[in-house]
Amino acid sequence: MTTPSITASDWLNIDRPPAPEDFRGKVLAVEVFQMLCPGCVMHGLPQAQRLRQTFHADDLAVIGLHSVFEHHDGNSRESLAAFLHEWRIPFPVAIDAPGDGAMPRTMTDWGVQGTPTLVLIDRKGETRAMHLGQVADMALGAQVVELIREERPE
Amino acid sequence: MTTPSITASDWLNIDRPPAPEDFRGKVLAVEVFQMLCPGCVMHGLPQAQRLRQTFHADDLAVIGLHSVFEHHDGNSRESLAAFLHEWRIPFPVAIDAPGDGAMPRTMTDWGVQGTPTLVLIDRKGETRAMHLGQVADMALGAQVVELIREERPE
Amino acid sequence: MTTPSITASDWLNIDRPPAPEDFRGKVLAVEVFQMLCPGCVMHGLPQAQRLRQTFHADDLAVIGLHSVFEHHDGNSRESLAAFLHEWRIPFPVAIDAPGDGAMPRTMTDWGVQGTPTLVLIDRKGETRAMHLGQVADMALGAQVVELIREERPE
Amino acid sequence: MTTPSITASDWLNIDRPPAPEDFRGKVLAVEVFQMLCPGCVMHGLPQAQRLRQTFHADDLAVIGLHSVFEHHDGNSRESLAAFLHEWRIPFPVAIDAPGDGAMPRTMTDWGVQGTPTLVLIDRKGETRAMHLGQVADMALGAQVVELIREERPE
Repeated sequence: MTTPSITASDWLNIDRPPAPEDFRGKVLAVEVFQMLCPGCVMHGLPQAQRLRQTFHADDLAVIGLHSVFEHHDGNSRESLAAFLHEWRIPFPVAIDAPGDGAMPRTMTDWGVQGTPTLVLIDRKGETRAMHLGQVADMALGAQVVELIREERPE
Repeated sequence: MTTPSITASDWLNIDRPPAPEDFRGKVLAVEVFQMLCPGCVMHGLPQAQRLRQTFHADDLAVIGLHSVFEHHDGNSRESLAAFLHEWRIPFPVAIDAPGDGAMPRTMTDWGVQGTPTLVLIDRKGETRAMHLGQVADMALGAQVVELIREERPE
Repeated sequence: MTTPSITASDWLNIDRPPAPEDFRGKVLAVEVFQMLCPGCVMHGLPQAQRLRQTFHADDLAVIGLHSVFEHHDGNSRESLAAFLHEWRIPFPVAIDAPGDGAMPRTMTDWGVQGTPTLVLIDRKGETRAMHLGQVADMALGAQVVELIREERPE
Repeated sequence: MTTPSITASDWLNIDRPPAPEDFRGKVLAVEVFQMLCPGCVMHGLPQAQRLRQTFHADDLAVIGLHSVFEHHDGNSRESLAAFLHEWRIPFPVAIDAPGDGAMPRTMTDWGVQGTPTLVLIDRKGETRAMHLGQVADMALGAQVVELIREERPE
């Protein structure tokens, strides 16, 4: 099943919202995080950064999705921009759009259960893995290669 | 020379601003930090917490001082309250009052050069050490005992 | 070029020396180490153990090769057996046979430059990588999958 | 009670066995270890080295005591010398003399229960702490200062 689109209220670390073409035919790793979540800061985001450094940008795109479901008042756009700057997070980050309740829209659409979650989407746009919590680097590197070696869509 | 008082615009993790009596005659460790400073999150605040767990509260009081000199917009009281909750920081935290420029007032009064800085104040209220950056646990534990063993003022 | 055989004076953690059939058609990871080499103890051997836990034994075989080129007197078979027991190294370990000089035979035959070195041998028996020192888990996991996905020989 | 003397069959990292005068009036930290004990390698010995770097040699002497009670065959003098060299252990190390059973003599005399154990002996020669397993750097630094500040014997 094709992964629903990201519904973002804004993007950081990129001049304009990415177009679908930017990811077309690539494997896409999406780090779903909250800037005030310790596991995201200690594990999820550094691992996403290692993914970006290990694989070629033509094969794997890495982005963040800031999906706040707690402490909404403490997570302004300005806070997030400063956080990304201070922690040296270089990849594009989408701010998940508000949902009907506490959960933001994309998080709900994707069925993400908490943060950090690393979502792997294949070259055809289908979700192939959702790792909630910690996943080991070795197993993740292996899984990403499996997806990279799949056929690119026409 | 006696350490100037903390000029706080607010306090968190405590019902009312601490009175001078709360620290009188104790050694006081003040972790000067910013919630968006990686070195504070990774090293300074966990070490302050270890100080609190290692020494008796009658001998050593541990507090935080949130002294923001960058990204003022990203550091609201709500952000800080959520941060302290998520990172399980249990000790009282003063929000340093705005100063004349970018630097907050207590940070300027004390001559703190950056974050994290651990300030050690002796039983008589004099500043005895300002550790900017990382200081080793073993040396810090030794230094705190030296201060604890000094005579309590009358 | 086909990797020369392991010339072992003895094996530990296995009842009999492995036969060529034991590795036939599999990818083989050989951790070349010395028990008195800190980098081997801290990085090389734990990583070899993670390789063993991450991949299926039908795809990847993991063994150690104890290739002593320093402190020969301090590296008896008894020392090594005790070391493997205490550090919980469960995979088979070959004791590299003495060579003409200080370097043991297999280490010379393979052209290994130091320890730790992780040697990756493909399904056809050819050496495909020799990682001297540290290699990141993510990149290694990716590389092993590439070799696993290659065709098994007839 | 005065700590019994160290009964050593040999010493490494020092030209001659230390005389009692070498430690007289100092606090003495003795790291009781086995070279094949992972907790000793990972925690005990690095901490002993930090003790040596943190305190002044006039106040605190740091030595090792190699007390083998398992795998006697794998722990020759040559193995230990190579181990100390490779792991960069610079302080004097006594080889505990054989005892009547599996336990070496000094270990039995002192009542040490396992390795690693850090034994702290005060300026008067009395045992004041035996830390079996891990002890936190901060608490240890504090405890050593307490002993250093005690009166030197006449």
